Amino acid sequence: MAENNFSIAASLSSMLEAKRYASVRDVLVTMNPADIAATLEEMEEGRLPLLFRLLPKEQAAETFVEMEPELQELLIKGFSDSELKDVLDELYVDDAVDLVEEMPANVVRRILSAADPQMRKEINELLRYPENSAGSLMTTEYVSLRPEMTVEDAITRIRRTGVDKETIYTCYVTKDRKLLGLVTVKDLLLAPDDEMLIKDLMVTNVISVGTMTDQEEVAQMLSKYNFLALPVVDNDNRLVGIITFDDAMDVLEDEATEDIEIMAGMTPSDKTYLRSTPWDLFKHRIPWLMLLMVSATFTGMIISGFEEALAAQVVLTAFIPMLMDTGGNSGSQSSVTIIRALSLGELEFADLPKVIWNEIRTAVMCGVVLAIACFGKIMLVDHLLLNNPSVTPLVALVVCLALAFTVLVAKIIGCTLPMIAKRLGFDPAVMASPFITTAVDAVSLLVYFFIATTLLKL
Amino acid sequence: MAENNFSIAASLSSMLEAKRYASVRDVLVTMNPADIAATLEEMEEGRLPLLFRLLPKEQAAETFVEMEPELQELLIKGFSDSELKDVLDELYVDDAVDLVEEMPANVVRRILSAADPQMRKEINELLRYPENSAGSLMTTEYVSLRPEMTVEDAITRIRRTGVDKETIYTCYVTKDRKLLGLVTVKDLLLAPDDEMLIKDLMVTNVISVGTMTDQEEVAQMLSKYNFLALPVVDNDNRLVGIITFDDAMDVLEDEATEDIEIMAGMTPSDKTYLRSTPWDLFKHRIPWLMLLMVSATFTGMIISGFEEALAAQVVLTAFIPMLMDTGGNSGSQSSVTIIRALSLGELEFADLPKVIWNEIRTAVMCGVVLAIACFGKIMLVDHLLLNNPSVTPLVALVVCLALAFTVLVAKIIGCTLPMIAKRLGFDPAVMASPFITTAVDAVSLLVYFFIATTLLKL
Repeated sequence: MAENNFSIAASLSSMLEAKRYASVRDVLVTMNPADIAATLEEMEEGRLPLLFRLLPKEQAAETFVEMEPELQELLIKGFSDSELKDVLDELYVDDAVDLVEEMPANVVRRILSAADPQMRKEINELLRYPENSAGSLMTTEYVSLRPEMTVEDAITRIRRTGVDKETIYTCYVTKDRKLLGLVTVKDLLLAPDDEMLIKDLMVTNVISVGTMTDQEEVAQMLSKYNFLALPVVDNDNRLVGIITFDDAMDVLEDEATEDIEIMAGMTPSDKTYLRSTPWDLFKHRIPWLMLLMVSATFTGMIISGFEEALAAQVVLTAFIPMLMDTGGNSGSQSSVTIIRALSLGELEFADLPKVIWNEIRTAVMCGVVLAIACFGKIMLVDHLLLNNPSVTPLVALVVCLALAFTVLVAKIIGCTLPMIAKRLGFDPAVMASPFITTAVDAVSLLVYFFIATTLLKL
Repeated sequence: MAENNFSIAASLSSMLEAKRYASVRDVLVTMNPADIAATLEEMEEGRLPLLFRLLPKEQAAETFVEMEPELQELLIKGFSDSELKDVLDELYVDDAVDLVEEMPANVVRRILSAADPQMRKEINELLRYPENSAGSLMTTEYVSLRPEMTVEDAITRIRRTGVDKETIYTCYVTKDRKLLGLVTVKDLLLAPDDEMLIKDLMVTNVISVGTMTDQEEVAQMLSKYNFLALPVVDNDNRLVGIITFDDAMDVLEDEATEDIEIMAGMTPSDKTYLRSTPWDLFKHRIPWLMLLMVSATFTGMIISGFEEALAAQVVLTAFIPMLMDTGGNSGSQSSVTIIRALSLGELEFADLPKVIWNEIRTAVMCGVVLAIACFGKIMLVDHLLLNNPSVTPLVALVVCLALAFTVLVAKIIGCTLPMIAKRLGFDPAVMASPFITTAVDAVSLLVYFFIATTLLKL
């Protein structure tokens, strides 16, 4: 995909150099705005304003929406006031709000003064909702119908007002701004009779969200119900906006990326990888590495505490990495499964006993099988094959007992911590592998040394 | 959400016991099929057929599609032939194909014999496409128009045939089955003139996918372009089906879950957590744990190889967990970032040099900062506070040099392995933390012991 945009970018560049502007335009108009944006991002920044001016108005605005914030800012700075106004007039309100949220203050002032008064008012209203809420994600450009309209009236209204609406396919029926029901264009087109009243055709048990609902929950609902759009209502059930499926898809992808980043011990980032500088990457990664390095002090202290035992039986050290890694892996298997299930709304805190019971049974099976395999491996490889005299059957037994117990503890910690985090209002993903690894490391070393000192009488 | 379904399930159960079937029906008909399915899953299995029969035909079919395969099988086994036929007649072909793919052979035979001949033929055609291909995801129920139709003809055709189509909002213009263009219902409704010809109204540069395109790529395209549906064409550009946004959303969620599971060292599962038995969980987790336990043999061998050095300076053992964990965390930060960027199509193999250069610069910053912090921590906590005589400044230097180098190696391995895996046609997610942890462990221990034996002259 990227390669393709790159080659288009190259051929556009050479056309521009040859001043073949008409040919450039002919290429651009056949392209989808998302592809134009990706191509423009591959071009030299100096050429952007010229290329952008070659686009027809509507396509220019659609392309603008698809671009990265840095390039949007660059373009705006090059726009005349009337060019800026042209682009803004073509934007949907939710896209304008996204833009305003990304731009620095001086650019925001220019945007707001260039927007027409109605749009400026709507942008300012939407900006009041907290980030990641349904209110900040919604658009106010929906089709509203009255219950006493006929099907024919409704279609006439859609024809008259539809051009500026984010979607016309789901229309909302309101009275005194209260949401009464919805009809789809499919219902309207397939209605047996053009004189039928909207109130007789509409679906009345409408599923809606509040303005403060979290955007992830909104996206999950759109996905679950396969809706094209979801209405957003205020506390008095007055319709204030709609959220469309395309925004929900973006939210689902962003939230999955965010979960994955947090689970791997990083502060989530809005930038794509190739747009991130090493400094950006550093800032998102170092706090967690630092925290986890410092927390590893505990494991170091545990080992120091058993220094004498280790000095007497240095062979025990050789199995520390295996125990720690298996513990870490077992724990993150459980935690990551639980975190994803929580994100998808498949689990909630009340399921905790069931989850723990599931994990205990799984851990016992995993632990027993691993311990037996590990015993066999140690006796076969370390004892017989490598002929290491300090690896006795008793040492193998110590390692395998510690292993089985570590797996059990790791899985219990791994499934419990994320659910408790969720209950306490934290992001469960924070509890994923790095944290659990540290906790499991400490417990597994304690268990290992306890079993070793007892059985080997150190 | 689940709690809500649970309480509805409880009140439906008591209504059923009181044989208040009309009330049950009144509750069910106001609910969305996805919610009915979730509620039914909370009920005793024995009550399902009765409840299902209380639903109106269309709603019953929509609910059926939303249910888990085990319950679908249970219901089908209880259906009479005519009940089965009623449900099948209401299903879209792609949902019928999904059903057939999930059911055991004897149930499939019943389904195919109950389906009407046209549907049976279409199911059999779609079953021929490989799993996870566009062909297996698409439905054949789309609206097709002819280029010489007028807007009025087109609307008439939609009215006549639309009821059975998965979407009517994007209509495809074909001639001799070849895809020529598309018009949306919005275009049709907003057309200036009812007599305008479709060929003058249609968009001709249609973005389409082939039948063998991977479903993840299809979903990414729908998300990128914000399309309601994407046409699927064969090698001769003949339209064979469409894929709608709701299926794309499911694919995006499933693929993200699958990536997360693989990254955490698990075989991906189709079942939700609460539907998975401990045996299911065991089967998906044990192969990886086993593999990683065995691969930890190498780290054990490295430690055994330096047994003498460790016996001379037991304090070195205390820092092994910290080195291994920091290395593992650094590596998985890089690998997980790269894997996600590959999944989202933001990166490709050609970017490898740029990625490595990015990661090296990030690693140097992280490594230097961590090493300095670690030196300070060791001298402050271990040397001064805990007053451990064996922790000399030279030992601290050894640990910190090893730490910085480990971070560098971990980040290079972490970013390189997933991109190479992708290039070789493997799933990059397989290369995430568990694998990289093992590789990084081995390298970091070798570096640690090399620096220790050199500087401490062991």
